[in-house]
Amino acid sequence: MIVQLENTISSSALFRLIGEIEELGFEATEVKTQKQSYLILTGKGQQDIRAVGHLDGVVDVHAVKDSYQLVSRSWKVARTTIDLGDGVVIGDGGVTIMGGPCSIEGLDQVDDIAAFLKTQQIGVMRGGAFKPRSSPYSFQGMGLDGLEMFAAGARKQGLKVITEVLAPSQIESMLPFVDIFQVGARNTQNFALLQELGRVDKPVLLKRGISGTLEELLQSAEYIFSSGNEKIILCERGIRTFEKAYRNTLDINAIPVLKEKSHLPVVIDPSHGIGLRSFVEPIALAGIIAGADGVLVEIHPTPEEAFSDGAQTLNFKEAEQLFTKARALTEFRAQHS
Amino acid sequence: MIVQLENTISSSALFRLIGEIEELGFEATEVKTQKQSYLILTGKGQQDIRAVGHLDGVVDVHAVKDSYQLVSRSWKVARTTIDLGDGVVIGDGGVTIMGGPCSIEGLDQVDDIAAFLKTQQIGVMRGGAFKPRSSPYSFQGMGLDGLEMFAAGARKQGLKVITEVLAPSQIESMLPFVDIFQVGARNTQNFALLQELGRVDKPVLLKRGISGTLEELLQSAEYIFSSGNEKIILCERGIRTFEKAYRNTLDINAIPVLKEKSHLPVVIDPSHGIGLRSFVEPIALAGIIAGADGVLVEIHPTPEEAFSDGAQTLNFKEAEQLFTKARALTEFRAQHS
Amino acid sequence: MIVQLENTISSSALFRLIGEIEELGFEATEVKTQKQSYLILTGKGQQDIRAVGHLDGVVDVHAVKDSYQLVSRSWKVARTTIDLGDGVVIGDGGVTIMGGPCSIEGLDQVDDIAAFLKTQQIGVMRGGAFKPRSSPYSFQGMGLDGLEMFAAGARKQGLKVITEVLAPSQIESMLPFVDIFQVGARNTQNFALLQELGRVDKPVLLKRGISGTLEELLQSAEYIFSSGNEKIILCERGIRTFEKAYRNTLDINAIPVLKEKSHLPVVIDPSHGIGLRSFVEPIALAGIIAGADGVLVEIHPTPEEAFSDGAQTLNFKEAEQLFTKARALTEFRAQHS
Amino acid sequence: MIVQLENTISSSALFRLIGEIEELGFEATEVKTQKQSYLILTGKGQQDIRAVGHLDGVVDVHAVKDSYQLVSRSWKVARTTIDLGDGVVIGDGGVTIMGGPCSIEGLDQVDDIAAFLKTQQIGVMRGGAFKPRSSPYSFQGMGLDGLEMFAAGARKQGLKVITEVLAPSQIESMLPFVDIFQVGARNTQNFALLQELGRVDKPVLLKRGISGTLEELLQSAEYIFSSGNEKIILCERGIRTFEKAYRNTLDINAIPVLKEKSHLPVVIDPSHGIGLRSFVEPIALAGIIAGADGVLVEIHPTPEEAFSDGAQTLNFKEAEQLFTKARALTEFRAQHS
Repeated sequence: MIVQLENTISSSALFRLIGEIEELGFEATEVKTQKQSYLILTGKGQQDIRAVGHLDGVVDVHAVKDSYQLVSRSWKVARTTIDLGDGVVIGDGGVTIMGGPCSIEGLDQVDDIAAFLKTQQIGVMRGGAFKPRSSPYSFQGMGLDGLEMFAAGARKQGLKVITEVLAPSQIESMLPFVDIFQVGARNTQNFALLQELGRVDKPVLLKRGISGTLEELLQSAEYIFSSGNEKIILCERGIRTFEKAYRNTLDINAIPVLKEKSHLPVVIDPSHGIGLRSFVEPIALAGIIAGADGVLVEIHPTPEEAFSDGAQTLNFKEAEQLFTKARALTEFRAQHS
Repeated sequence: MIVQLENTISSSALFRLIGEIEELGFEATEVKTQKQSYLILTGKGQQDIRAVGHLDGVVDVHAVKDSYQLVSRSWKVARTTIDLGDGVVIGDGGVTIMGGPCSIEGLDQVDDIAAFLKTQQIGVMRGGAFKPRSSPYSFQGMGLDGLEMFAAGARKQGLKVITEVLAPSQIESMLPFVDIFQVGARNTQNFALLQELGRVDKPVLLKRGISGTLEELLQSAEYIFSSGNEKIILCERGIRTFEKAYRNTLDINAIPVLKEKSHLPVVIDPSHGIGLRSFVEPIALAGIIAGADGVLVEIHPTPEEAFSDGAQTLNFKEAEQLFTKARALTEFRAQHS
Repeated sequence: MIVQLENTISSSALFRLIGEIEELGFEATEVKTQKQSYLILTGKGQQDIRAVGHLDGVVDVHAVKDSYQLVSRSWKVARTTIDLGDGVVIGDGGVTIMGGPCSIEGLDQVDDIAAFLKTQQIGVMRGGAFKPRSSPYSFQGMGLDGLEMFAAGARKQGLKVITEVLAPSQIESMLPFVDIFQVGARNTQNFALLQELGRVDKPVLLKRGISGTLEELLQSAEYIFSSGNEKIILCERGIRTFEKAYRNTLDINAIPVLKEKSHLPVVIDPSHGIGLRSFVEPIALAGIIAGADGVLVEIHPTPEEAFSDGAQTLNFKEAEQLFTKARALTEFRAQHS
Repeated sequence: MIVQLENTISSSALFRLIGEIEELGFEATEVKTQKQSYLILTGKGQQDIRAVGHLDGVVDVHAVKDSYQLVSRSWKVARTTIDLGDGVVIGDGGVTIMGGPCSIEGLDQVDDIAAFLKTQQIGVMRGGAFKPRSSPYSFQGMGLDGLEMFAAGARKQGLKVITEVLAPSQIESMLPFVDIFQVGARNTQNFALLQELGRVDKPVLLKRGISGTLEELLQSAEYIFSSGNEKIILCERGIRTFEKAYRNTLDINAIPVLKEKSHLPVVIDPSHGIGLRSFVEPIALAGIIAGADGVLVEIHPTPEEAFSDGAQTLNFKEAEQLFTKARALTEFRAQHS
């Protein structure tokens, strides 16, 4: 159950309110985000807390039966939008494309791709500086230096920066160079990392776990929200299945279902999702027509020379064709909704 | 390896040809379909059989490295089309919608739905007369009487009939009433059934196994083809995953990948695939933009009263909206391919 | 709900009984097996049918809440034993080993293995005559001739014969040569086949589906039982998982859980289960200590020359070592239960 | 490829050695553990580096073809043993039982369980102070205070302490109270945590990921080893499958396979693995006969009152019965190996 509080609620009113709630048999967890304050009520209290609704400092009370609360659409039907500034908004009904290489590899690579994205009117650039790799001996990314180089190149072209964070200790040093923190599928349930990202005033793109359920994804998003950060983007990136013909199985079903369950925007990552260059386009388009708010796409001037994931990366020509179709389909979607 | 034979090849030429092939270290399996004759070469023979290509009665020789042969696109790039007559063609670049109830329930139900489909210019009606049910005590369908009633009602409106077959012993009696035999996910590897359907001159729609791979699906299709029937439609109907929010996970990725691997048409069954009425539309549209040649949709005048699968069945209004969008999207797809 | 009937119940008493039951709002399915007669009650009738319990011809009434009925342990706590004659009993507290080749290959092979099994005091010989193969071009087994040869060789040594059946049409011709019909994992939900085997008075070993749940396995067993055959053996043979280091993942957990849910005996097939020769022994032993009533083991004089599945097949020396340990462990199990 | 170095190798010799290796086309990663120094060679160098084997400071050179190196059994056939002191050794051929509650709940609970374990001659006590929970509103454990209380109670009885760590930032403060750090299934690929645990001189028990492969588990273990810590215990704790009758599916197959692939000890966690009290015993025994070096068991004086996981927790009487059988079976195993 969610109790929305007035931002101006006094300490004494809050103290009194919590007392009343505990007498009703609930436990109350205080949540204070960039936007608002809440109490989350758990436990076996009686469900009729209308009395509480009339107390000082209370805006509204919402019964939410899901195992997640603040990220649920049960209490907030209006969709969350994430405004990155300079006209880049995620979740406003359009489709935000975020393009760029799997790994940041050097100055020229960054500049080439940023310039290309700019010509294509793409607003967000993706790129990995800290790479989670199954083997400790694989290329682990260019690290903070690479990220700095990436941010400089992207911002020169007016692009926003999205990149993956692997550990709480990296957040502070990354902060100046990042517009969206990305949490990868291996860390979807790394709760210590999620809580730390809850204390940051930057959007977080949270990927679904490799074999994770939507409920688990939303509970993980709840960790971020309840730690103070409302700016969350959910990302479907393909689940592990028995199919061997593709790297992962991007689950298009997750898009409309997540959008019914949650008010948060939902994007997809078809490059990792299917993992084969020639199929990125149909899967991206399928995601758009199914309601995705955005698409992550791996792009490289010469995919066959990429440090990682070349097989699933588009070259500029392929990317341009995808962007053109994606725009037309977004228009189609708006006309037929 | 595939040796395409002239339809007019003489017995003696064939005998000589097989002899030469066996001398090269191959085993030859004869395949004679409605359209053509083939020899399929297996074993460890030397790969250079160009000599064979010049023998009497040989049209062409194709090296196919897949674990399936005749259904592979390696030897036949042109897409297979299935012509049901009366202008209903599957696989010609359009999207064939096949609508109807999960179970045939009675005369009125059949007539209502057939009339509705006719007004919507839908050409194929689906409906189950023999229902495979996990429990022997569940409703098992109306059987042959139901099928006869179904066929009569559908044909009155000029509709083609698709229905599921469960056992070889049912085929002969079903034959007069069926335009497409459907093989369900539990029988994808029921090879005895597939071989029997290979001896029939009616199209077969073969569903992917509940946890089956695309390779297994194509090998099963090969059983039908190599038993004599080239008229095969592949169907993605959702795989089993860990997600509990939907019945199955319809795998959109399978569509473009199957179409690259095989020349056979590919359709989807979003009703079973996601199993929730409100998400059938986005998944159907996603499948179309990803390249599907057709869509199976469960429709019922009053889904809440259906004998089976009501939760995933569209009413007429919902179906009409889906058909309208599907047509517009099919046109979009044609323009942007 | 199960109504156990007297075997001597008169037609008129049965007719009256069914009438009474239908008035209570149930539907009644008659089941007549080799051993007994039952009515299975489904539908939304009121649960208190004690009145029925006192009617003529009724032995007992059992409320069973599982989705399966006659195979459930809710009504029959005593374990089912399968007596094959000549002292071979499955499910009597011991461990029945069933050894032999994946495929029957010829007279010498059959004789060699049968003689070996005899010296090892093994009572049941396994061997495939009809092989379900993913590809139509793979070796499909020696068929009925092979089965006849197999049965002759096995019976010469006093061994019972277990072999796989693929289609209803094969049953009658196989009948004279078979002591246990085996249903493979691809056919676990081939309900037409299960129903036909329900009409036979020979035991059926039913394998769990490749990705099937225990509930589905028990519902499939219910198809056999409710068609008239109580002699059913459940078999865990490994499920499909994401692990690539072994062919399948034999699920030891299924053994004690199936034995709690059902009164039927439970055996395992570690050869297919893990698919690697050197691990068959530890998995077989793990299954025994977890409560298995039997173990299927693939054995071949020269596994490296076997027509199929050589990589998971034991030679005689490996088999002998396994048998010795299995016997000692069975004794250990009896002492510590 | 692994180059084992003399512990006394001089900086100049090491510098020269790395130079030679790089000239051969390899990249060299230095690894210095508590026990030894190594160079790990990656890249496309020519495989014949026998010349390097004769250089100063080199003990031996091992070609390892696995995707993991130092944890592989390809170079170190002798099994790793973990000596915790006071006679508690993991991996010496016996079976180490680690018992205790899911969550540390208070002084009395700790004392009761520790006293019980002592009477049972169990050497290691498990208990969670930091609990990873899907929901941020669930009980998150008693934290550091709880851990301190746990360690005090356990050590009073001479027991070693194993507990889960969730984040790098917790390690230092936990260090005085912990004998084995446990990494849970959600963090198997939390590489930042693994690397930090590589810098600690305490054993780490690493659980397999919820849907992780054995190769991924071993690559994660490689992160710990290559960061400096050789004291690693692998733990199978059940994988996610489609089966709904139990919480997870403990994969017994993993035990013998991991022991063939790696020299590290392998333990199992049947309590989480199957998640149902009445089946913990058969699964634990199955694991022992399949070769497990240890078993984690959840024990509580009154499982029905436990803060978490009560349904899978044994009471003292059940635990005692398991311990007795486990000891007898360990003896059986030793006699029959």
